[in-house]
Amino acid sequence: MRVAILGATGAVGREMWRLLEASEFPIEALSAYTSRRSAGATLRFRGADVVCEDLTEAAFRPADLVLASAGAAASRLWSPRFAALGAIVVDNSSAFRSDPACALVVPEVNPDALDAPASIFAVPNCSTIQMVVALAPLHAAWTLAAIRVATYQSVSGAGARAMEELLHGTRKSLAGEPFQPEVFPHDVTFNVLPHIGSFDADGESQEETKMRDETRRLLGVPGLPVSATCVRVPVLRGHSEAVWASFAKAPDPESARRLLRERGVVVEDEPEAARYPLPTRAAGRDEVFVGRVRRDPADPLGLCLWVVSDNLLKGAATNAFQIARHLVARGRVGASRSAR
Amino acid sequence: MRVAILGATGAVGREMWRLLEASEFPIEALSAYTSRRSAGATLRFRGADVVCEDLTEAAFRPADLVLASAGAAASRLWSPRFAALGAIVVDNSSAFRSDPACALVVPEVNPDALDAPASIFAVPNCSTIQMVVALAPLHAAWTLAAIRVATYQSVSGAGARAMEELLHGTRKSLAGEPFQPEVFPHDVTFNVLPHIGSFDADGESQEETKMRDETRRLLGVPGLPVSATCVRVPVLRGHSEAVWASFAKAPDPESARRLLRERGVVVEDEPEAARYPLPTRAAGRDEVFVGRVRRDPADPLGLCLWVVSDNLLKGAATNAFQIARHLVARGRVGASRSAR
Repeated sequence: MRVAILGATGAVGREMWRLLEASEFPIEALSAYTSRRSAGATLRFRGADVVCEDLTEAAFRPADLVLASAGAAASRLWSPRFAALGAIVVDNSSAFRSDPACALVVPEVNPDALDAPASIFAVPNCSTIQMVVALAPLHAAWTLAAIRVATYQSVSGAGARAMEELLHGTRKSLAGEPFQPEVFPHDVTFNVLPHIGSFDADGESQEETKMRDETRRLLGVPGLPVSATCVRVPVLRGHSEAVWASFAKAPDPESARRLLRERGVVVEDEPEAARYPLPTRAAGRDEVFVGRVRRDPADPLGLCLWVVSDNLLKGAATNAFQIARHLVARGRVGASRSAR
Repeated sequence: MRVAILGATGAVGREMWRLLEASEFPIEALSAYTSRRSAGATLRFRGADVVCEDLTEAAFRPADLVLASAGAAASRLWSPRFAALGAIVVDNSSAFRSDPACALVVPEVNPDALDAPASIFAVPNCSTIQMVVALAPLHAAWTLAAIRVATYQSVSGAGARAMEELLHGTRKSLAGEPFQPEVFPHDVTFNVLPHIGSFDADGESQEETKMRDETRRLLGVPGLPVSATCVRVPVLRGHSEAVWASFAKAPDPESARRLLRERGVVVEDEPEAARYPLPTRAAGRDEVFVGRVRRDPADPLGLCLWVVSDNLLKGAATNAFQIARHLVARGRVGASRSAR
């Protein structure tokens, strides 16, 4: 299997690299594409050196499996090129998430989409993935009628440079020195920013729109009302979400906890013992964590939940890798080459 | 006028001290009560030294105006004692907020409560104050039907020691050294904690219950559905809130901004220019800041708002001081003494 990783040195790329290395995929060739800045650097993979390359016409080589995490612009340019030459592309960017010719998949939520006759399989937005993993089992039981969500999103959602910026900004702040952010529009140090992505004419941010559009597609409920307020917080890794979910049938917290556990969600819900999901504890783990499950005091058909997951793992690399593993198991990867 | 401050060296107490010093109140005697730990320390007030005292039977002296911010236990013990001897007590603790014999006041929201025949005037919870200041003008126009709110609360809401703990924990974290928090149940450094106050049997935290009970009382709508998820974030000063407000009549964002401006709320709402309220910019200011005003995409009768204010000022000391100033102006302070 020939594999290419786009954005190999990015925050998500590093995690995909690690997952790929630990996998049992029979990899005969591995291309590590990065930004020009990182090109020439060497990465170790299963005991061998892989030299990072800037993805240009000259460097482009066909692959059987492409794991793309180099941003929407790079994906728009290159993912269809790889796909046209027979590759299965698992794409972490926002480029193809609403494209009906591409699949949008969270394997626990809409596994049928893995059978789509697509070449590009899009990974949803990180904040969407963890929310739908937590809501899908409840939707199956009680049928979602509306979702409201306020997010507490870590800086790693904006990439490796954003993590460096938070650490650097924090050091400057503690030293009482001025600091000019470059990644974020304002210094996120000891601060929170209600701003993720650009804004539309109605004042909604791209991230907020993504959470609605992608949730509807993943759950297969086109008109589902979803209202999000997305906020960046000074956390390095791990997104948290305060969710209000309203249903057609009356839910109850105890059944919700059981349904979540049955579907592999980690329920941490003993608040009186200070046990609830925390982003610092979810960091480095593959699961989605749910706690603070309770009746919505403003809605007899509603539940409140606190949902946490590592945005670089289940929110990106882990979900991408799950998709890849499913497609490999189904014989989809390398199929066009073996058919030749 | 004889004035006593309870908790003079606390995070809120220091702000009350500053406001009192800058006021035109004719102060003939000032008592600074603190914890035993701070007793004996000297504070400057209008060019004179005031020695801090532990509030004991021996140290207790009647006053005309008491500004209490030493926690609910101290308030329960001492505020009625001062009141029984003729004092007007403005109380920042949670001790008397639901007591029908005491007033609960945000002057912009329920000024009539300033005329209550009470001796103890309670200052609402910080997260409640900024929310009702933002919602009261909209309630007057369209009649609130329900409120959902997710908070991003700074550590100073837990006092001066909590601020030190965040700074200390952050230094430790950057140095890669372990750190055991004492004020918070978990280290809040680069983390968020969905835990403010203890939890009831339904899994709701005290802070979340306060936001409902106090909002109902302040707006005079006993059954108003209010659903809060309260979260501590690594911010030093300034609470932020993502609010979903649902009304009986259809609201619109442009009218909402106008109504808010007319009532003295600072509207910062040009998100495309990265202009919206931020806790770091609200810190040290007396106003409530609102931005991200938009229609709730999940509710034709709803609005979304982002509400920020300095929890130590409008959320505590400023609101307390506004109450005191109104009561002084009405001749309520020192009235029992002059009548003797």
